[in-house]
Amino acid sequence: MITGKNYIGSQLIAGGDKVFKTFNPQLNIHNPWQFTEATTDEIKLATAIAHHAFLSFQKATGKEKALFLRTIAEEIMTLGEDLLDVYCQESGLPKGRAEGERGRTIGQLNAFADLVEEGSWVEATIDTAIPDRKPLPKVDIRKMMRPLGTVVVFGSSNFPFAYSTAGGDTASALASGCPVIVKSHPMHAGTSEMVASAIIKAAQKTNMPEGVFSNLNSSGIEVGVQLVKDPLVKAVGFTGSINGGRALYDLAAGRPEPIPVFAEMGSINPVVILPDALKQNAQKWAIACAGSVTLGAGQFCTNPGLILGIKNDDLENFSNQLANEILKMDPICMLSPSIHKNYEVNKDSLSSQQGVQVVAAYDKNDKPNYAAQKIVTVSGKEFLKNTVLHKEVFGPFSMIVQCENKAELVAVLNALEGQLTGTILGEETEIKTFNDVVDALGNRVGRIIFNGMPTGVEVCPAMVHGGPYPSSSDSRFTAVGIDAIKRWVRPFSYQNWPNDLLPEALQNENPLGLSRLVNNIQTTDSI
Amino acid sequence: MITGKNYIGSQLIAGGDKVFKTFNPQLNIHNPWQFTEATTDEIKLATAIAHHAFLSFQKATGKEKALFLRTIAEEIMTLGEDLLDVYCQESGLPKGRAEGERGRTIGQLNAFADLVEEGSWVEATIDTAIPDRKPLPKVDIRKMMRPLGTVVVFGSSNFPFAYSTAGGDTASALASGCPVIVKSHPMHAGTSEMVASAIIKAAQKTNMPEGVFSNLNSSGIEVGVQLVKDPLVKAVGFTGSINGGRALYDLAAGRPEPIPVFAEMGSINPVVILPDALKQNAQKWAIACAGSVTLGAGQFCTNPGLILGIKNDDLENFSNQLANEILKMDPICMLSPSIHKNYEVNKDSLSSQQGVQVVAAYDKNDKPNYAAQKIVTVSGKEFLKNTVLHKEVFGPFSMIVQCENKAELVAVLNALEGQLTGTILGEETEIKTFNDVVDALGNRVGRIIFNGMPTGVEVCPAMVHGGPYPSSSDSRFTAVGIDAIKRWVRPFSYQNWPNDLLPEALQNENPLGLSRLVNNIQTTDSI
Repeated sequence: MITGKNYIGSQLIAGGDKVFKTFNPQLNIHNPWQFTEATTDEIKLATAIAHHAFLSFQKATGKEKALFLRTIAEEIMTLGEDLLDVYCQESGLPKGRAEGERGRTIGQLNAFADLVEEGSWVEATIDTAIPDRKPLPKVDIRKMMRPLGTVVVFGSSNFPFAYSTAGGDTASALASGCPVIVKSHPMHAGTSEMVASAIIKAAQKTNMPEGVFSNLNSSGIEVGVQLVKDPLVKAVGFTGSINGGRALYDLAAGRPEPIPVFAEMGSINPVVILPDALKQNAQKWAIACAGSVTLGAGQFCTNPGLILGIKNDDLENFSNQLANEILKMDPICMLSPSIHKNYEVNKDSLSSQQGVQVVAAYDKNDKPNYAAQKIVTVSGKEFLKNTVLHKEVFGPFSMIVQCENKAELVAVLNALEGQLTGTILGEETEIKTFNDVVDALGNRVGRIIFNGMPTGVEVCPAMVHGGPYPSSSDSRFTAVGIDAIKRWVRPFSYQNWPNDLLPEALQNENPLGLSRLVNNIQTTDSI
Repeated sequence: MITGKNYIGSQLIAGGDKVFKTFNPQLNIHNPWQFTEATTDEIKLATAIAHHAFLSFQKATGKEKALFLRTIAEEIMTLGEDLLDVYCQESGLPKGRAEGERGRTIGQLNAFADLVEEGSWVEATIDTAIPDRKPLPKVDIRKMMRPLGTVVVFGSSNFPFAYSTAGGDTASALASGCPVIVKSHPMHAGTSEMVASAIIKAAQKTNMPEGVFSNLNSSGIEVGVQLVKDPLVKAVGFTGSINGGRALYDLAAGRPEPIPVFAEMGSINPVVILPDALKQNAQKWAIACAGSVTLGAGQFCTNPGLILGIKNDDLENFSNQLANEILKMDPICMLSPSIHKNYEVNKDSLSSQQGVQVVAAYDKNDKPNYAAQKIVTVSGKEFLKNTVLHKEVFGPFSMIVQCENKAELVAVLNALEGQLTGTILGEETEIKTFNDVVDALGNRVGRIIFNGMPTGVEVCPAMVHGGPYPSSSDSRFTAVGIDAIKRWVRPFSYQNWPNDLLPEALQNENPLGLSRLVNNIQTTDSI
């Protein structure tokens, strides 16, 4: 079922000579399939047919795109257990997680289908003419969103379904009317090929133009670099490391025609525990933090890598309880040997910094690629001095920062880079006296959480998954939720345009029944 | 009334030694006032107090910001004739234009005041909790827009009011809750200082924090470069040339923390005349084009620099009529000797390209700084071969491109860089047979116009002033209309946040009466 070839549109092509295999970290062996990296010419062909597809796909109706997205979801389900098995073999993740993530992916596809079928997302805005206005007549102007063009999606390592081939970036881009070229993640090229086959089948069943979707194999950076530099590519979606995301951002910004890159990158997701919470609920929050830090071997963008409190006996007590809880956890297999190795190296590097002390380090791990969890602690003063301590360690690791007082806590928050999330654990009665802490945290993050854990990103309209740099490359957008579609569209005005030649969304009769802003009033009425 | 100093917040400061004067192009002499360029330390002070102001200004209520904006408008009016006089002395533009542009500026300020006073622009989105959801409970998540931080605004040369100190960029940024630092345009530093005095007075009257607005003088690029590189600056608005805008974009993208730049840059605004229009309305469109090309000495972003048609006797006839009409126009004073000089140089450079023929060139001009209008023509074939012909000539100049056939017309449109506008002049009966022309044009522009001229940018919600690169640096935004505020804000989520600690926009009771998306339904109801 896995051919190892590239989908250039609906064609399976593998003319290159650079091959690679994926790896099963649980068994610590290579998987059987061999993948052929896309060649320069194959990449060019993919962008050329995507560009051609755009000319018609950008005009697909909401209903047509919704059918396409729903059919992708169905075709993914049709792949059944086989797909889940390949997912597990390429990620080391358990089947329950595979199933859950598939459900989320299906949910995302259907949510965007609902969005574009309903249609009001195009933000139709109409200002009708006032021919007798003085001193000058007012012309008729009507605006709606239209797609940018071909979007390149870089699949993530840690979500082989939900942030990869048919994940949120692809679903939102296709929903907007943009063709998509996926550069599949080299760690799960087989999963990607299977999901790609579902997308291609759905495209054919629903009469989408050839080239609306391609899936390219790659083992290094060359394929991605060529894609981002291709003049026919108009936007990029990325989920991964700061180094990777920044490199793509720089490439895109340096093009003769710069293009937008939405890169969702690293984050250490600070969790602040306020004094009363430490006093009254140390045990509860220690259990919650231990669970969140080790969840999925800590391989989540929203993993809490930093726990902040004001130094006193209660914080000491919390540390001890967290140590206790975290050592109860069983280690979990990481996604790959290289991710595991990076985890160990980065963990050791941070642990050996000046003033860092170990709170708890799991040491009974004897399985290859399994992550040994660790908690360290450092003073606020040391943390402020040493920005190495501000870096993400991707894995089940967290650092407790013991601040002298509230002022130092605020200073630590202000010194942090941008984050996806920030969390306050506290009693409702005390939070008002920590306004400055909440404000400082709010200025650094995309989502702020009260008495909960940052892991677990609900897919809903109110979710923001993004944040100030470097958690994302543009904090004005989100990667999760229906507003993720806004990354791939631009507003477009028609002036004095004949009614019957306008897109239906802007016609007087409002044939699609959209909610529109007409002469500054939001309405579903016709004109 | 004009001191020549910088407004660092409310303080008039001029510690530097680099001075310059503005120029009266009508009289061809320097104006009397001497301006002192902001020093490195003054710039640092401006960004520091702006950052400090942001901490409180970001929380200003819609009512408070609306009062601030409306008071700015009032204070500008209070400056009365004196302001109009300085505007005219620094731009060479006539008083009627000054008055009209002031009206537009006041209108923009009041439109943003209305927007933020009503408040629904924050896109409040609420997904309430479902505690008993399986397999996992759903948490409460609420999202709204919040401001990015300090915005630096680069005033334009050609709109000393509407796209400068208190223009659309400043009005939209202040409305969003972002402090603004204006780098005033060196050609109208006096106008800028006077308008800045109105903003400062309004800030004081309405109790805005010190540092919410600054106005810096500059004669070269140094002030702007330092501002864009300052870590406390979080976004940039720019209106001007492609070279200037791109340089700022590159600087911002190259920062350790990249920041968004919305640069509205050059455009040649292609106008396509279809065959039946040429046959039936040559005279009408010749008069309209002559007026639009020469309006304000052609110094508009939407000036039609390119007129495209299919070669035949009707196009020849139209060319002759346009020649006739354009030579009837009186030359108009340009904004400055340097702009006039660039116009002459660029006009000559384009006119001397291979295959370019003169259709009409005004030659009775004897006033310094007055622009002599010119129309040239070239074949589609030559145009496709030579990208020098695709460049903007800022001034009353236009080029008629004679295409062999429809296919060549489409090829020419596809070869163009991104544009603010594109225009179709045609009979309603023929436009359907030119679908491919309309499609090609639509893919290159931000606004498409039927049977009208691109000059005259209506300020209304449905307007898009922006477009594919290089007409703007990010086609996903507009510089004109209420949606211009979206450039300066980011979505922000509160998860499980106590109701009484939420911003009013997100509280259950909906105390502001906003239109909100609650559990996927748009409503003004409380929860």
